[in-house]
Amino acid sequence: MSIELHPIVGIPEVAPGDDLAALIVDGLATSKITLTDRDIVVITHKVVSKAEGRIEQAADDRAYRELAEREARSILRRRGDLLIAQTEHGFICANAGVDRSNVEDGWAVLLPVDPDRSAHRIRLRIERALGASIAVVITDTFGRPWRRGLVDVAIGVSGLPAILDLRGETDARGRTMNVTEIAIVDEIAAAADLVMGKSDQIPAAVVRGLDLTGEGRATDLVRPPEEDMFR
Amino acid sequence: MSIELHPIVGIPEVAPGDDLAALIVDGLATSKITLTDRDIVVITHKVVSKAEGRIEQAADDRAYRELAEREARSILRRRGDLLIAQTEHGFICANAGVDRSNVEDGWAVLLPVDPDRSAHRIRLRIERALGASIAVVITDTFGRPWRRGLVDVAIGVSGLPAILDLRGETDARGRTMNVTEIAIVDEIAAAADLVMGKSDQIPAAVVRGLDLTGEGRATDLVRPPEEDMFR
Repeated sequence: MSIELHPIVGIPEVAPGDDLAALIVDGLATSKITLTDRDIVVITHKVVSKAEGRIEQAADDRAYRELAEREARSILRRRGDLLIAQTEHGFICANAGVDRSNVEDGWAVLLPVDPDRSAHRIRLRIERALGASIAVVITDTFGRPWRRGLVDVAIGVSGLPAILDLRGETDARGRTMNVTEIAIVDEIAAAADLVMGKSDQIPAAVVRGLDLTGEGRATDLVRPPEEDMFR
Repeated sequence: MSIELHPIVGIPEVAPGDDLAALIVDGLATSKITLTDRDIVVITHKVVSKAEGRIEQAADDRAYRELAEREARSILRRRGDLLIAQTEHGFICANAGVDRSNVEDGWAVLLPVDPDRSAHRIRLRIERALGASIAVVITDTFGRPWRRGLVDVAIGVSGLPAILDLRGETDARGRTMNVTEIAIVDEIAAAADLVMGKSDQIPAAVVRGLDLTGEGRATDLVRPPEEDMFR
């Protein structure tokens, strides 16, 4: 079974109050993509945050740092201007997800208040408009300890499991699997980034060919502190 | 520009001394995939390690733990039977990459000695056999701090940059990018895992449609200790 990744082109700059689902539906038409059941629409959180008005002024470095500190539930590390912090959702990332790229000078984009709920809302609106039963994943770009470079991960999901639990399944030789929990929705986020790019105006993509059902949440991906060896 | 992910089926169980490149070439024929220039062949390291004889007996939990300790250059954390360790290559992962799934009972699979070199060797053999200019990525399945679930990452690469450096590039509004280094080869590894699965006998996949050139190494992804805040 093969999988296709298609960029959704033609989505304009998004501003607070915009109907993002409608812009994506238009973008799908421009991209000549007809959604079918089980398609996954992956959206970078930046356009979600903008549509939801989650942007704030940050005139200078100090204002920006204060914004990151305000968005942080707790701070794990500081180095210069960089803060590694846990957000209210539980995600651990740079500057509590507050970002100044791809936004007007003097402004910063925050994470959506409830990205799982945002994903669900956008999913329902696209489903109603197009009559297909789909899933939605909202992504952000995170760094990682130990490995250089950033990768896209899921911060919101609707219509998919966040984690694929293979416990009890057997491998090709009939042995019970060691690898039991796959962060499938993070792999979907990373895959979609391959067609979205960072400097292009492509904030969304379609992942087609995965046969998954379930109702996970991106917050399922937050490792409980008692299981975490690196806080 | 769209991307396709195709599983390579028909690759049999791999044993020490097997010609893995030849098995992949046969699998491509079985899968009716004709490689073209810039295709990326992604291979789970387990078949690479087996072909290279990187499997060892581990009769019980103690032998297995000793093997993991032997493969570790340094140990970051211990919890019960789980070791978080840095390998000789520099990767930080569970049990220094030593794994007992998808191998005969009483045996364990180690990481290839030099996965970048393995990738290069396999690439050249496939290129000679099929006449296409391709890239090869070798993957493993790693856990992450803070986020539940495992994702596939690159541990070997040939014919691709490991990291996409966007420094100096500008975003859609002409501002210099904040997000400067994308771990593109990890995103490719994660994407390929979507068609490989863990319990199926599908140890390789083709990623088609990315237009990348370069000669990175997976060891480029190792974050230098002085930059790392979580050791």
